[in-house]
Amino acid sequence: MPLSSEQLAEIDAQRAHTAPTRRVVSPGMESHLYRAHPVLDHGFVRVIDYMGDDAAICQAARVSYGTGTKSVQNDEGLIRYLMRHWHSTPFEMCELKLHVKLPVFVARQWIRHRTANVNEYSARYSILDREFYIPAPEHVAAQSAVNNQGRGEALQGEEAARVLEILKADSARCYDNYEAMIGQEGQQGLARELARMNLPANIYTQWYWKVDLHNLFHFLRLRADAHAQYEIRVYAETMCRLVADWVPFAYKAFEDYRLGAVNLSAQMVDSLRRMLAGEAVTQETSGLSAREWREFQDVIGR
Amino acid sequence: MPLSSEQLAEIDAQRAHTAPTRRVVSPGMESHLYRAHPVLDHGFVRVIDYMGDDAAICQAARVSYGTGTKSVQNDEGLIRYLMRHWHSTPFEMCELKLHVKLPVFVARQWIRHRTANVNEYSARYSILDREFYIPAPEHVAAQSAVNNQGRGEALQGEEAARVLEILKADSARCYDNYEAMIGQEGQQGLARELARMNLPANIYTQWYWKVDLHNLFHFLRLRADAHAQYEIRVYAETMCRLVADWVPFAYKAFEDYRLGAVNLSAQMVDSLRRMLAGEAVTQETSGLSAREWREFQDVIGR
Amino acid sequence: MPLSSEQLAEIDAQRAHTAPTRRVVSPGMESHLYRAHPVLDHGFVRVIDYMGDDAAICQAARVSYGTGTKSVQNDEGLIRYLMRHWHSTPFEMCELKLHVKLPVFVARQWIRHRTANVNEYSARYSILDREFYIPAPEHVAAQSAVNNQGRGEALQGEEAARVLEILKADSARCYDNYEAMIGQEGQQGLARELARMNLPANIYTQWYWKVDLHNLFHFLRLRADAHAQYEIRVYAETMCRLVADWVPFAYKAFEDYRLGAVNLSAQMVDSLRRMLAGEAVTQETSGLSAREWREFQDVIGR
Amino acid sequence: MPLSSEQLAEIDAQRAHTAPTRRVVSPGMESHLYRAHPVLDHGFVRVIDYMGDDAAICQAARVSYGTGTKSVQNDEGLIRYLMRHWHSTPFEMCELKLHVKLPVFVARQWIRHRTANVNEYSARYSILDREFYIPAPEHVAAQSAVNNQGRGEALQGEEAARVLEILKADSARCYDNYEAMIGQEGQQGLARELARMNLPANIYTQWYWKVDLHNLFHFLRLRADAHAQYEIRVYAETMCRLVADWVPFAYKAFEDYRLGAVNLSAQMVDSLRRMLAGEAVTQETSGLSAREWREFQDVIGR
Ligand SMILES: Cc1cc2nc3c(=O)[nH]c(=O)nc-3n(C[C@H](O)[C@H](O)[C@H](O)COP(=O)(O)OP(=O)(O)OC[C@H]3O[C@@H](n4cnc5c(N)ncnc54)[C@H](O)[C@@H]3O)c2cc1C
Ligand SMILES: Cc1cc2nc3c(=O)[nH]c(=O)nc-3n(C[C@H](O)[C@H](O)[C@H](O)COP(=O)(O)OP(=O)(O)OC[C@H]3O[C@@H](n4cnc5c(N)ncnc54)[C@H](O)[C@@H]3O)c2cc1C
Ligand SMILES: Cc1cc2nc3c(=O)[nH]c(=O)nc-3n(C[C@H](O)[C@H](O)[C@H](O)COP(=O)(O)OP(=O)(O)OC[C@H]3O[C@@H](n4cnc5c(N)ncnc54)[C@H](O)[C@@H]3O)c2cc1C
Ligand SMILES: Cc1cc2nc3c(=O)[nH]c(=O)nc-3n(C[C@H](O)[C@H](O)[C@H](O)COP(=O)(O)OP(=O)(O)OC[C@H]3O[C@@H](n4cnc5c(N)ncnc54)[C@H](O)[C@@H]3O)c2cc1C
Repeated sequence: MPLSSEQLAEIDAQRAHTAPTRRVVSPGMESHLYRAHPVLDHGFVRVIDYMGDDAAICQAARVSYGTGTKSVQNDEGLIRYLMRHWHSTPFEMCELKLHVKLPVFVARQWIRHRTANVNEYSARYSILDREFYIPAPEHVAAQSAVNNQGRGEALQGEEAARVLEILKADSARCYDNYEAMIGQEGQQGLARELARMNLPANIYTQWYWKVDLHNLFHFLRLRADAHAQYEIRVYAETMCRLVADWVPFAYKAFEDYRLGAVNLSAQMVDSLRRMLAGEAVTQETSGLSAREWREFQDVIGR
Repeated sequence: MPLSSEQLAEIDAQRAHTAPTRRVVSPGMESHLYRAHPVLDHGFVRVIDYMGDDAAICQAARVSYGTGTKSVQNDEGLIRYLMRHWHSTPFEMCELKLHVKLPVFVARQWIRHRTANVNEYSARYSILDREFYIPAPEHVAAQSAVNNQGRGEALQGEEAARVLEILKADSARCYDNYEAMIGQEGQQGLARELARMNLPANIYTQWYWKVDLHNLFHFLRLRADAHAQYEIRVYAETMCRLVADWVPFAYKAFEDYRLGAVNLSAQMVDSLRRMLAGEAVTQETSGLSAREWREFQDVIGR
Repeated sequence: MPLSSEQLAEIDAQRAHTAPTRRVVSPGMESHLYRAHPVLDHGFVRVIDYMGDDAAICQAARVSYGTGTKSVQNDEGLIRYLMRHWHSTPFEMCELKLHVKLPVFVARQWIRHRTANVNEYSARYSILDREFYIPAPEHVAAQSAVNNQGRGEALQGEEAARVLEILKADSARCYDNYEAMIGQEGQQGLARELARMNLPANIYTQWYWKVDLHNLFHFLRLRADAHAQYEIRVYAETMCRLVADWVPFAYKAFEDYRLGAVNLSAQMVDSLRRMLAGEAVTQETSGLSAREWREFQDVIGR
Repeated sequence: MPLSSEQLAEIDAQRAHTAPTRRVVSPGMESHLYRAHPVLDHGFVRVIDYMGDDAAICQAARVSYGTGTKSVQNDEGLIRYLMRHWHSTPFEMCELKLHVKLPVFVARQWIRHRTANVNEYSARYSILDREFYIPAPEHVAAQSAVNNQGRGEALQGEEAARVLEILKADSARCYDNYEAMIGQEGQQGLARELARMNLPANIYTQWYWKVDLHNLFHFLRLRADAHAQYEIRVYAETMCRLVADWVPFAYKAFEDYRLGAVNLSAQMVDSLRRMLAGEAVTQETSGLSAREWREFQDVIGR
């Protein structure tokens, strides 16, 4: 359970309070505000604030004096057009602020996205909590035999048990020693900024993270993708659901033109046209390398 | 008068509409929302949306579960500390969206600030309005004799009149010809993307502009400064007033530690200490160049 | 002719000078250094400096101690893989610095690319040259009837002549008045920062522009594209040729996976698979809107 | 010793190779190229490439056709002027590429600087080396009593010994277990992307890191500062020495106007002027808070 009862009370208090505003309001997002959406064993994603909605994308694209909405249908068409033609700046007109709790090794991947604003909990100033990510047994997977960067089947029986045992024991021991170094009866105590270096990468950290919708989509495309590591992908998937409730048209366009879309090279397009014209194109006659041909076959479902 | 009655009606309609929200609300900013604050002869700044307030800066700096506010006094102290020590990321947690109407030559300076999100009115797609910036007589100034990049005294009498005459006549003629090229009875009409190149840089354009508070302060520091050209400075000054109503603590800290502050070089600090110790430091004994010495004298009010 | 003989001599002097370096050298780029590649009637693109080559992309992707090159073939495969899978950070490891002379209305589009470093000639400090872009007759085109943002056929005969006449006359008159305002016998002279606002958008400006290869490709994809305005496209095309000589593998991958590639939505992929399976898919059965269906037909060459 | 003899041979081979170039060459930087400058117990900083020199800053500021250098003295004056007045874009015209080996907890601070290009060694793909940062005894320091974010005196005797013992033992055990999980005789082996989460934050990683000179100075100002953690400060200090050899004028200006400079608030300037006029200003009469007054006293050396 990621939150203490005190924290839950603070969240409830915030949710109970509403005030009138002249700004655009997204009902879908209001319902999520402040609530902790659990991810992994101790992590969460909480929406802290948002700016804009689907109409705000159109309003900016049209540089309008009023709300900028013409008709709901018209707005959806415009949003799909913008997405299809990589007109990304109107999507930058929406903004999202999250509070995220996540393991350090996930944070290390996440922070590589530079087009966001971040404030992380300071382990120079504060003491980290004793909370470590321990994968569920079905996620304790072997190194992939086909994909050098990924993982394959779940480990079985004794090997899986041994791994989980190690992770738990090392986390516990490292944390015990972290605490011991920071301070014990009658000792000065090691500086926190030093003591933390004894903590393994499955310890949890947390941050405030704020980003515009275009760069959020970019993040989600890369991190909700099958190539992304499972542990960051579950965060991305949780965020996808939040975004779908916030800006439904934009999210649908994103799903169609990014998440579920494919990019075909000039040579692939050429092969495709020839195939549609009835030619039996082979790798040899396609001009594609073996690897590219395989990826192409995947796309066209052969 | 920059706005048509139709546009004013759209703005009034937006202002009349409020809805409840769970997000933090800044009363100071709510009062400004959507209203056009006039700048120069046809320009304006309108607040379209905002995210966060003073407390949101502290909430992020503390990575809090709740509102993050301790006490008002405590918050102000933290904000001043963050500003003083260049801890800028908590200020990135507030965001502002404006609709701005401004002359093209001002837009060309403004757009150099890359840490913002922008959507500009398209002159490939649409026809620009016949609106040109003509300076008020007191702003028709001579090239500065002391500052190569700036302007000096206002021109007088006939010379000023001649300048204003030229600006008005050339604007009018160029716009007449712009219209004429775009289309006349029985002609095809030049593409708008080409016709616009006949328009001088005092024509007005408009855009949606969105930025976080840290980068907004950076913009204001450079553009509300005496070295900035008058015509962009008046926009910056209008924005300063809006920001002061939005995040009063942060704005006060900005005023004290950026706008009204000075940066002293290592050598200047050395001179200063010697002076305070009673030594009569001169340019020669200061180690400062003549120019640096002059700037130093200005700072210490000599 | 864009350059004075004095400027040409400065360029020749720079080209004549070589010095030994331990850095990686791109022979293709060395041959271009400092030379002005003419664009439009008075513009140019000059390579001032570059960092890295194809091998440097691989070296960074592999985080190598040495040159990081395995074999030429291996490197090319890796570069194509990185491009195909949007692994963009290794492409950021190459950098290009250009000196560009371009009309102001092109500069206004160009500067929207925020991921670059820019220093522009100051018209507050200096006096601009009397150089205006006047399109060649075949580029004096009508507003497009099908694409709201573009241009259609060239104007013919009298209408074209009239347009060219206007552009030339207004440029000349505005510049005469610019000069007149800046200073005449016995007058103070209007500040340059003000006088310049009388100049139309076809006047030339110049800047130093520096960017990494990933963001340069992003620029080229958007600006060498058919949707881009002709006058910026010719700059992009000139730059494409320079980049092809600098990093030939990366450029080829860019051509195949970006410039000549297509992005198919989830629904389009579905239609495609059905078509390849022999089904006669129509717009109605495809789930695509009329507009999307038309774009899809274009892609598959129907 | 951070490098294997094979790696040293690769570096020597690269250093031995020179080729002629037409680009500007910085002799100071050429002498450093590829060499590993040791930092901490196993870390290093290696210059992989650079673009530009002092003159290149001036060339861009002047938007020159040739080298842009007027006289050496003139160039230095311009560079100091640019630094003093926060004209930062000309400094963006120089670029530096480094290969850095550093502990993960340092990397986590470093990566927060978003205005750089990064490629990190992949621990999803590869196996990390058994190399951990163990502080020298004199750096095993207590939590600071005065500064909540910093460290105080070195721990003494037994307590220090105990800390070092823990760090060494936990590093070794965690690494043993990392290896054991990744693969043992007759087992499948845990995916690397999972196994790495058992590794503590003092393990070394490495990356290619590329940045422009303005943002490098920004990094150095924050990280060569007394408030920065010792372990990142030593990297910053090593980099300061490299930069001083690369762009001596710019570095000197940076030292004078940033590193050794102070920022005085509006109220501090006021107090200062009154003090210089002979008034005995106290905290009460200064308008400064107790904390601000203390910082002010530090600056003026009282
Ligand atoms: C002593 C010290 C203590 C610190 N303590 C903490 C802490 O407790 N918690 C914590 O989270 N961090 C902490 N930090 C990190 C700090 O908040 C910054 O993240 C870090 O110093 C990088 O600074 P920067 O953002 O100015 O640099 P860069 O990211 O290189 O940015 C430079 C400038 O570019 C612009 N910029 C770049 N990217 C963006 C973007 N995506 N959006 C908007 N503007 C952008 C901004 O103007 C920015 O100032 C600490 C840093 C120091 C030096
Ligand atoms: C055919 C065409 C028509 C256009 N029509 C219009 C128009 O009518 N109106 C109009 O305003 N513009 C128009 N544009 C400009 C367009 O909206 C973009 O501003 C321009 O193409 C630059 O693209 P970019 O933002 O992707 O590039 P860059 O600014 O180079 O950014 C590249 C990427 O970096 C990130 N990034 C960089 N800076 C920031 C930042 N400050 N905040 C967040 N993320 C950042 C984003 O992920 C971005 O995608 C048009 C462009 C084209 C090609
Ligand atoms: C009085 C005055 C005179 C000027 N004169 C000239 C002139 O003669 N010629 C001229 O060309 N300009 C001139 N400028 C413009 C000036 O050079 C800057 O372009 C402008 O002030 C924007 O500042 P910035 O780059 O700090 O802001 P932003 O672009 O908002 O950037 C803020 C910070 O973010 C980081 N950053 C953002 N984008 C990038 C990026 N793509 N790469 C690296 N870091 C990035 C940097 O750390 C930067 O400092 C002048 C400005 C002023 C105020
Ligand atoms: C499956 C997968 C595997 C990966 N493997 C590795 C690996 O082995 N090693 C590794 O180092 N990384 C790896 N990464 C991280 C990857 O290289 C990117 O750092 C990360 O995905 C962030 O992407 P981004 O740079 O596009 O996002 P952002 O940083 O959010 O940038 C978005 C866009 O903004 C612009 N931009 C933002 N900041 C800058 C800047 N400072 N300079 C120039 N342009 C800027 C660029 O156009 C950029 O594309 C991996 C990522 C994924 C998804």
